[in-house]
Amino acid sequence: MIIQLDPWITGADRQVLEAALAAIDYKATEVRTQERLYLVAIGKKEFDIRSIGHLQGVWDVHRVSDAYKLVSKKWKVGHSTIEVGDGVSVGGEEIALMAGPCSIEGEAQIVEVLTHLRSQGVKVMRGGVFKPRTSPYAFQGIGLDGLKLWHQHAREFGIKIISEVMSVQDIQPMYDFLDIYQVGARNSQNFDLLRELGKVDKPVLIKRGLSGTLEDLLQSAEYVFSGGNERLMLCERGIRTYEQAYRNTLDINAVALLKDKTHLPVILDPSHGIGIRRFVEPVALAGVAAGCDGLLFEVHAIPEKAWSDGQQTLNFAESRRLIHKARELFSFCRGLDRAFPVDQDLA
Amino acid sequence: MIIQLDPWITGADRQVLEAALAAIDYKATEVRTQERLYLVAIGKKEFDIRSIGHLQGVWDVHRVSDAYKLVSKKWKVGHSTIEVGDGVSVGGEEIALMAGPCSIEGEAQIVEVLTHLRSQGVKVMRGGVFKPRTSPYAFQGIGLDGLKLWHQHAREFGIKIISEVMSVQDIQPMYDFLDIYQVGARNSQNFDLLRELGKVDKPVLIKRGLSGTLEDLLQSAEYVFSGGNERLMLCERGIRTYEQAYRNTLDINAVALLKDKTHLPVILDPSHGIGIRRFVEPVALAGVAAGCDGLLFEVHAIPEKAWSDGQQTLNFAESRRLIHKARELFSFCRGLDRAFPVDQDLA
Amino acid sequence: MIIQLDPWITGADRQVLEAALAAIDYKATEVRTQERLYLVAIGKKEFDIRSIGHLQGVWDVHRVSDAYKLVSKKWKVGHSTIEVGDGVSVGGEEIALMAGPCSIEGEAQIVEVLTHLRSQGVKVMRGGVFKPRTSPYAFQGIGLDGLKLWHQHAREFGIKIISEVMSVQDIQPMYDFLDIYQVGARNSQNFDLLRELGKVDKPVLIKRGLSGTLEDLLQSAEYVFSGGNERLMLCERGIRTYEQAYRNTLDINAVALLKDKTHLPVILDPSHGIGIRRFVEPVALAGVAAGCDGLLFEVHAIPEKAWSDGQQTLNFAESRRLIHKARELFSFCRGLDRAFPVDQDLA
Amino acid sequence: MIIQLDPWITGADRQVLEAALAAIDYKATEVRTQERLYLVAIGKKEFDIRSIGHLQGVWDVHRVSDAYKLVSKKWKVGHSTIEVGDGVSVGGEEIALMAGPCSIEGEAQIVEVLTHLRSQGVKVMRGGVFKPRTSPYAFQGIGLDGLKLWHQHAREFGIKIISEVMSVQDIQPMYDFLDIYQVGARNSQNFDLLRELGKVDKPVLIKRGLSGTLEDLLQSAEYVFSGGNERLMLCERGIRTYEQAYRNTLDINAVALLKDKTHLPVILDPSHGIGIRRFVEPVALAGVAAGCDGLLFEVHAIPEKAWSDGQQTLNFAESRRLIHKARELFSFCRGLDRAFPVDQDLA
Repeated sequence: MIIQLDPWITGADRQVLEAALAAIDYKATEVRTQERLYLVAIGKKEFDIRSIGHLQGVWDVHRVSDAYKLVSKKWKVGHSTIEVGDGVSVGGEEIALMAGPCSIEGEAQIVEVLTHLRSQGVKVMRGGVFKPRTSPYAFQGIGLDGLKLWHQHAREFGIKIISEVMSVQDIQPMYDFLDIYQVGARNSQNFDLLRELGKVDKPVLIKRGLSGTLEDLLQSAEYVFSGGNERLMLCERGIRTYEQAYRNTLDINAVALLKDKTHLPVILDPSHGIGIRRFVEPVALAGVAAGCDGLLFEVHAIPEKAWSDGQQTLNFAESRRLIHKARELFSFCRGLDRAFPVDQDLA
Repeated sequence: MIIQLDPWITGADRQVLEAALAAIDYKATEVRTQERLYLVAIGKKEFDIRSIGHLQGVWDVHRVSDAYKLVSKKWKVGHSTIEVGDGVSVGGEEIALMAGPCSIEGEAQIVEVLTHLRSQGVKVMRGGVFKPRTSPYAFQGIGLDGLKLWHQHAREFGIKIISEVMSVQDIQPMYDFLDIYQVGARNSQNFDLLRELGKVDKPVLIKRGLSGTLEDLLQSAEYVFSGGNERLMLCERGIRTYEQAYRNTLDINAVALLKDKTHLPVILDPSHGIGIRRFVEPVALAGVAAGCDGLLFEVHAIPEKAWSDGQQTLNFAESRRLIHKARELFSFCRGLDRAFPVDQDLA
Repeated sequence: MIIQLDPWITGADRQVLEAALAAIDYKATEVRTQERLYLVAIGKKEFDIRSIGHLQGVWDVHRVSDAYKLVSKKWKVGHSTIEVGDGVSVGGEEIALMAGPCSIEGEAQIVEVLTHLRSQGVKVMRGGVFKPRTSPYAFQGIGLDGLKLWHQHAREFGIKIISEVMSVQDIQPMYDFLDIYQVGARNSQNFDLLRELGKVDKPVLIKRGLSGTLEDLLQSAEYVFSGGNERLMLCERGIRTYEQAYRNTLDINAVALLKDKTHLPVILDPSHGIGIRRFVEPVALAGVAAGCDGLLFEVHAIPEKAWSDGQQTLNFAESRRLIHKARELFSFCRGLDRAFPVDQDLA
Repeated sequence: MIIQLDPWITGADRQVLEAALAAIDYKATEVRTQERLYLVAIGKKEFDIRSIGHLQGVWDVHRVSDAYKLVSKKWKVGHSTIEVGDGVSVGGEEIALMAGPCSIEGEAQIVEVLTHLRSQGVKVMRGGVFKPRTSPYAFQGIGLDGLKLWHQHAREFGIKIISEVMSVQDIQPMYDFLDIYQVGARNSQNFDLLRELGKVDKPVLIKRGLSGTLEDLLQSAEYVFSGGNERLMLCERGIRTYEQAYRNTLDINAVALLKDKTHLPVILDPSHGIGIRRFVEPVALAGVAAGCDGLLFEVHAIPEKAWSDGQQTLNFAESRRLIHKARELFSFCRGLDRAFPVDQDLA
């Protein structure tokens, strides 16, 4: 059960509520996000939910039987739109596009990509400055100085920044220089990192783990949300299977299921999802048709020369084509949904 | 290397060709399909392919380095359209729709579904009469008599039949009563069955194995093709992964990759691909956007009462909505492809 | 519920029993194996099992809640020993060893391997004469003539034969020339083949599918058993996972679980289980320690020259070492089990 | 290529060496562990390794083609024995046993388990005080105070402590109160954590990720080693597969392969490896037979009342039996290896 409280609930009312929960043997955790105040109450006994709902100081209450709570659609029936600032948002009426290189390489590359994105009206640039590399001897990213340089140029172009944060110690230093924190697949269950990101007042995108279940992903989101940060989005990026014809197996079912289970926006990363440049476009479009809210993909002026992930990175012409098609398809599919609404009679 | 021969090649020309192959240490297998005559030649030595191509009786020759040969796009660059008869085809300019119940249950159900399909302009009905059931005590299908009854009604409605054949002994008895033989996931590497289906002059649809690789699937197709039957189509139906939120994990990457590797039509089975009725539509549409040639899905007047697979079966209203949307999306995507052609400059 | 009947139960007693089952709404399937007569009865109602057990003509009755029935340990608490003939058995007090080449290649090879096996006291030789090959152009086995040749020599050496049967049509022709039918991983759910093997009075070994669950395997065994043949054994041979460091991932958990769920003998195939020659021994020994009843492994005079699977095939010296170690370990572990019995108090 | 240097190499000799590396286009990373000084040099050119080996200040040099370097057996042919202190070691002539509850619960439980372990001669106790829980609302461990309490009692019993560290911030606070840092499966690629553990002078055990490859695991070990800490051990704990009959699929192949690829000790966690209490023993014994150096398993006075993981936790009687059997089997297998040595002629 989730109980949304009046943020200025009186001490007396709070005591009455707590007594009512104790009476039905429910254990409550207070969650104070940057926007609201909740009690997440867990117990087993059957009870009349109106006995909680009518109490003073209670604004809203819902039963949520899922293991995840505040991110569940059982709590919030609609969908959340995440504001990134300056009118940029994710999860709204337009497809959210975030594109850029795997690794930030330097000033020339930054400007090239920003120029490409601005020409296409893309408002968020992705790029790594701290790279989670399997080998300790591989290139580990150009670090915070690279992020600062990137930030300076991005601001000039009016483009937002999403970049991966790999550890708790990096959250604060990166804070002034990005707009969305990305939690990578390898950190998808780094619970300390997730909890700390709950304290930050910037949006967070969480990638599914290499072999994470959707339940895992939703509970990871619950860590951030219950830590205090409601501005969250989830990202499907392919899973590990026996099939070796591609780097990962993009799980399109995940898009359909997540859109049903959570109110958070769902983003697709087709670049990692298949890992082969020539197939990024068809699987990205598949994601749009399945209902995702946006795409996160890799683009570089000359993919063959990219410092990392070149084999799954689009060049500017390919990127242009994907952006056009994705936008057209997104509006077409929204139109189809309006024309053939999901009628309750059908179910 | 694949060599297409003049079907009336003279014995003398044939000897010259064989000598040429022996000289470069290539071992050739003759493949005589219902339509053409080929030599599939395997060897390692480098040689000038024109030395084969200019010989008498040789119509065409290509190097094919894939493990599969005649089904490869390296042999046939375009895409194959499979004729089912009476103007019904798969792999052409229209989306191929095949729908029907998991199990054929009896006359009333057959007529209900046929009526629904005709009202929607769907030209192929699916249904099982021999059911591959994990348990020997489960319902095993109504058998050949059911197929005959179904066939009689389907002919009246002008609708074609696709049904699963589970063993070599059933090929002949079923022959007069269906239009497309379906090889199920559990028989995807039943090589005897595949080889025998090569001798039949009806189209064959092969489903990917429960954990079959795409390479496995293409080689299974090669068994049928090299057995003599070129009228083949492949079907992605989800694979087994660690994720237990759905019955199978639909592999959308497979659609993109198969369309690139083979000239055969690629069909998607969204019903088995996710296994949950309410999500059949979004993943079916994803498949269309990724480029599949058709959909094979389950529909029943009252899914809750279906003898099998009810939890992944659409009712008629849901089916109607999916059919409409799939057709609209199919044309829209083809239009997009024409508007933004894959320019060689991009690659 | 499984009811074992007096094979000469009278018609009148049978009617009384059937009425009793009808009264509790149970649906019964008669299973007449080469050795016994059963009714497998499926229903949901609660009832006093003694009401069935005391009826005339009923020899034994047990509740079996598993999806598989007659192969369950809930039916037969102990373990089954399968007689292969001439004192050779599987599932008894000695480890069952079955070894030989992947493919039977010819007389010289047959005699070499038989000589090696006899020198080591191994009583069953494995080998393929019909090979399930992914590619139609690959070597498909030397066929029935090879089996006959092999059989003739094996009889002289007093060694039994296990060989894979790939289709229903081959069961009869192979019958006189082998001692154990092997169902390969790709045919693990070829239900027609399994059902037909139920009619044969020779033992059957069923391999787990490439990504078969243990439940699948047990139900496949149920097909053979309920088809009439009780002389069955199961084989773990590795499954498909994301890990590409080996050909398959040997599932050692399966050995422990199967020994608990079924009374049938459990054989391990370490050659396919890891697919790398130098690691066949340690994983084979792991299987023995986990409680398997026997090993099925590949051996060849010169693995480097074997027609197939050479990379996972032992040479004679390696085979000798494995056989010695496996036998020693098998008795040591049985001794340990006796010294530290599983005390009910512990559970 | 790995070059071990004289730790007091002169500046001049160092310059000569660096020039030699530059001449063959090799890029070197200096690795100074708590015990030795290395250069890990990466390049592609062919060269005579003696041209490096004969230089002043070079103690040893080997080509290592693996992606991981210092943990490879190509660098150190034998096996490493990790000293934990006071004569306790891992990877030596005795099986290393580490046992204890999933979660440390309080003083009574600590003393019960310590008493049990001392009675069995087990020298390392495992237990979690910071628990990586999928849900933010689940019990998160009793924290540092619990560790201190545990440490105080463990010292009295003369028993060492292994416990999971979940974040960089916890390394220092835990330092005085444990003997081995455990990196859990979910942190297996938390590269910041790994790198920081390289600076600590206590042994580290790294668990394989939920779906980590062996290559991933070895490279994670390389992070710690190249960070400065050579006292490392690896732990197989089961992977995620499609099979749902157990919590994880213990990968016995991994034990065999890791023992061949790395000189580091290999530990098996049978409790997580299968996740079902009654099967912990057979799979643990399988690991011993496959060659692992030790076992890490869960034990509790009353598993049914354990705060977490009770379903896979042994009680004291079961633990006693496993310990006895594992030790007996370990010596028996070592004896077998001596009796039937791996003869080079065999390979």
